[in-house]
Amino acid sequence: MKISQKYQLTQPLTLKRLGVNQATTRTRWNHRESLLGYAKHDIKHIGLWRDKVLELEVKDTKTLLNNHGMKVTCLNRIGPVFSSDGEADATFLEDAKRGIDEAVALDAESLMYFPGTSLPNNKNLDFARQLAKDYLDKALELARSANVKIVIEPLHPMIAGDRSCLNTIAQCNDICDGLGGGLGIVVDVYHVWWDPMLKAEIFRAGAARLAGFHINDWLVPTTDLFSGRGMMGDGVIELRKIRGWMEQAGYRGSVEIEIFSELWWQKNPDDVIKLAIDRALQFA
Amino acid sequence: MKISQKYQLTQPLTLKRLGVNQATTRTRWNHRESLLGYAKHDIKHIGLWRDKVLELEVKDTKTLLNNHGMKVTCLNRIGPVFSSDGEADATFLEDAKRGIDEAVALDAESLMYFPGTSLPNNKNLDFARQLAKDYLDKALELARSANVKIVIEPLHPMIAGDRSCLNTIAQCNDICDGLGGGLGIVVDVYHVWWDPMLKAEIFRAGAARLAGFHINDWLVPTTDLFSGRGMMGDGVIELRKIRGWMEQAGYRGSVEIEIFSELWWQKNPDDVIKLAIDRALQFA
Repeated sequence: MKISQKYQLTQPLTLKRLGVNQATTRTRWNHRESLLGYAKHDIKHIGLWRDKVLELEVKDTKTLLNNHGMKVTCLNRIGPVFSSDGEADATFLEDAKRGIDEAVALDAESLMYFPGTSLPNNKNLDFARQLAKDYLDKALELARSANVKIVIEPLHPMIAGDRSCLNTIAQCNDICDGLGGGLGIVVDVYHVWWDPMLKAEIFRAGAARLAGFHINDWLVPTTDLFSGRGMMGDGVIELRKIRGWMEQAGYRGSVEIEIFSELWWQKNPDDVIKLAIDRALQFA
Repeated sequence: MKISQKYQLTQPLTLKRLGVNQATTRTRWNHRESLLGYAKHDIKHIGLWRDKVLELEVKDTKTLLNNHGMKVTCLNRIGPVFSSDGEADATFLEDAKRGIDEAVALDAESLMYFPGTSLPNNKNLDFARQLAKDYLDKALELARSANVKIVIEPLHPMIAGDRSCLNTIAQCNDICDGLGGGLGIVVDVYHVWWDPMLKAEIFRAGAARLAGFHINDWLVPTTDLFSGRGMMGDGVIELRKIRGWMEQAGYRGSVEIEIFSELWWQKNPDDVIKLAIDRALQFA
């Protein structure tokens, strides 16, 4: 196995390319604390969540970011589209408009569309996927006129039963083919590392669509389907190999730490970020 | 949504097409008890496991089966190919020969190839998949000369980290394309129900490759990645829709109940089989 040959084009990761997604510290840091915490570690690319952003005036968040030379990668999120009865939520588009306005005010690189799914209340996955696509089309129309890029993200098949009906990168590429410009794909290793089509579909997405790269790890054993992610290096994901594919496909954006984990959420967030940076530079 | 139109070609399921996989009652019934238990419920198609089969002489199992007009669907299994260091296990081919002999003696429709994976000991998924294919090729050569059909089965991506490197039906179809005849695919709804390519890949497999159809259900929430399967009707899988695709693609084999579940393993197996038959006829 000449694995090294596969990696030779992959430049070492540097701190200036690293990002942190606010979900990583969501339990113990409020919005302001998190921005100051990331700034302390010289992190320049921040993935924000709208529920956190709402803790301050948007302009105050922007000032905080500017003061530390920080940029917003992706603003999470508009959606879910489905209400609790498994049908379309009538309030989705109004909320999408607010999300687009916030993305503009924060100068975010992108705005995440999170469709959710009709399951388990409406057990028709084809219906869920069609409706998810239809409402993405509507949101895109609004976003294009505001010059905001919408991104979608395949989520792991194990949460297709209750969290998201977008489950593979091929499916997201198909949706992008169908809906045209203004749309990108975020690749989170946790959701896609197992996919035999991963390399091919990253290349299919290419520089034009690849709009985010999230890192963490898949633990063996995994005991929680939602918040059981691992710290980079503690699991089985070949982070550097996948980053290599992203870069060979033309991706030049940030490498964003995003760890949903009951374990790490309990620990001192400052320690977690320090360790995550070390691990990212070592393993990704 | 005119869902009914999609189902109109799907004939109601009948008891004579139903099968039971021995894993469903593995905790509380030994081999002989399980065969007599399934016979009592008029089940004619039985998925056997080699560790259970070893409890009796193979010829005694065959006599038991014959006495009740029962046929073996699939004999589980040869593999895993990987030893605990993540490399190929030197004993695999010897064991495969024994498995082939047992499949012949039991007149089984097929013999399952279970590659396992090199992870987490050897974190190179491409290596694991290549080695899994190479050893399938070797096992196929042995099986063809004994006129035994080998089957492969995509297992859910959530167990790609430790249990199997075959994770989608597309991947299994690609392997079949590469290795030629004598090879079939078992479709277990639990592992594939979420796949946006499921219908297309079932049709791609077609009558020649489709060699088994397993039913159970995906629970929301799912709390155990290995033995947390649900009873048909308790989860979110559209069993009848998927069975319709199988049959439209030409599959005419049995519909096999296979429930890996700590919950159901604790209950009276006779009650579980009775309920599972009722649920299968109602929902699948």
